[in-house]
Amino acid sequence: MKVLVIGGCGFIGSHVVDALMGAGHSVRVYDRQPERFRAPIKGVEYIFGDFSDRMTLAEAISGTDAVFHLVSTTFPGTADLDPPTDVTENLVGTLRLMDTMLGLNVRRLLFMSSGGAIYGIPQVTPTPEDHPLRPIGSYGIVKAAIESYLEMYRRTRGLSPVVIRASNPYGPRQGHVGVQGIVGTFLRKAFQDESIEIWGDGTVVRDYLAVTDLADLCVRAGTSEQTGAYNGGSGKGVSVNEIVAHIAAVTGRKLDVTHKAARPVDVPRSILDCTRAEADFGWRAQCSIRQGIADTWDWMQRQG
Amino acid sequence: MKVLVIGGCGFIGSHVVDALMGAGHSVRVYDRQPERFRAPIKGVEYIFGDFSDRMTLAEAISGTDAVFHLVSTTFPGTADLDPPTDVTENLVGTLRLMDTMLGLNVRRLLFMSSGGAIYGIPQVTPTPEDHPLRPIGSYGIVKAAIESYLEMYRRTRGLSPVVIRASNPYGPRQGHVGVQGIVGTFLRKAFQDESIEIWGDGTVVRDYLAVTDLADLCVRAGTSEQTGAYNGGSGKGVSVNEIVAHIAAVTGRKLDVTHKAARPVDVPRSILDCTRAEADFGWRAQCSIRQGIADTWDWMQRQG
Repeated sequence: MKVLVIGGCGFIGSHVVDALMGAGHSVRVYDRQPERFRAPIKGVEYIFGDFSDRMTLAEAISGTDAVFHLVSTTFPGTADLDPPTDVTENLVGTLRLMDTMLGLNVRRLLFMSSGGAIYGIPQVTPTPEDHPLRPIGSYGIVKAAIESYLEMYRRTRGLSPVVIRASNPYGPRQGHVGVQGIVGTFLRKAFQDESIEIWGDGTVVRDYLAVTDLADLCVRAGTSEQTGAYNGGSGKGVSVNEIVAHIAAVTGRKLDVTHKAARPVDVPRSILDCTRAEADFGWRAQCSIRQGIADTWDWMQRQG
Repeated sequence: MKVLVIGGCGFIGSHVVDALMGAGHSVRVYDRQPERFRAPIKGVEYIFGDFSDRMTLAEAISGTDAVFHLVSTTFPGTADLDPPTDVTENLVGTLRLMDTMLGLNVRRLLFMSSGGAIYGIPQVTPTPEDHPLRPIGSYGIVKAAIESYLEMYRRTRGLSPVVIRASNPYGPRQGHVGVQGIVGTFLRKAFQDESIEIWGDGTVVRDYLAVTDLADLCVRAGTSEQTGAYNGGSGKGVSVNEIVAHIAAVTGRKLDVTHKAARPVDVPRSILDCTRAEADFGWRAQCSIRQGIADTWDWMQRQG
């Protein structure tokens, strides 16, 4: 299968490219910039452009069998700063992508949604896919609206969309500027012997998923014919304090931890029920949180 | 209270203006065009501009105590034709309205949502407000996203939003070009002795609400301090075939009815549970469907 990975040089995208190549697929990447953390991958076709550049994106889509849409111009922690921009760039941008795909008769679309943001404050954990969508921030509101449009386009226009609602992915090549997730951010602080800042008392529970597991799920789902939404998580809850303990154990460094006020954007507890992905794709997260943190630490030390 | 009614010359808006004036409030209207069906109302201040004209709209908001936002540039039956435009004009437009209001320290906002579109295919009828939002068309997807942002702005920015999820409003001054609802459309056909076209077999059930009842609810809700969403409907289900029978009885005309294929956008049955509005505002729909159709027929005959 020939797959276009939009955002293929990014954190998740680069691992998806690896997984696609490993499974013998042909890969084209669309991204704003070249590979950040490694040399260009042999056999991968790179096309550079902005997500809003419709004509270049149309060229990239042309002749592919499936599109994996993994980009967001915002992060959960920053999207609330400017909702009109979030909507315009990500929601309208994705609608235009869908229209362009249909115009080119490319119908298979994998969309990266958010299992952490889309349910809002969960009524039940682990949270299954049919839980009501009650996002409390712009990032999740936009993801929910996109999912609704994907379903509408499936029903009325022949699009074949599959959605991955990722939990909290982490691992090598993740950014570490403080908005992309705490594992990378905290490891970088440990690496630089800086203090670690925790919002709240550290009891917030999240479902952390190794990016290699997430990439594996994307390939299984995107190259299947299934449609609809699938949670992608470990199914296990880990507190921020536990993450810090794992980091201390893996790095062997003495960590200086300070606490800041809790953020209103944080839901107290988020764990995903991933039985649907297991049933339909035979997929389960394989990498433990301890192993995943160790892998990330190894990568960070090699990068320097 | 000084209230700005955005869309105050429109079908619903003009009745809201009447109800506000009747309750002794001071009214300013913002609309693209002057009163269509009547002379300008004495005592009402009119400001003309497009919903996208932020500076003129800001002038209109300035100095008011509350804003009633009643405009949509799309209809349920047309929004699916161009989702990017629907999102840009209505969702982004409403976000910019909210930002402008907060910049002017005007915090009270009544938003007209859709009880017919926002729930999707209801799991239960009459449908209560806490039913999951699973809109199946662009009109409802945009309304749901706006409601999520209103709640986010309430929680994090001090906006005081109240949402009316109207069922199928009808009555005098409704358009009759075929996208604004079947009561006006069918009455106009009867008036012109043209045949009435029904999508499907006429068993589709809707909750029809006289626009005067809806305007009464808007005034009660918008001038209160309650926040959140309220269904606005009759609480009763009426089929298309029953509407046709009422029209035949009221007009005394022999109707020529033809049938077209059912529309995928139509949910089979939509009835709203309006007990929350009754509990919080002492509001119930007063006008029967037969009386409302008779009132609309009288108005149409006077208009010619």
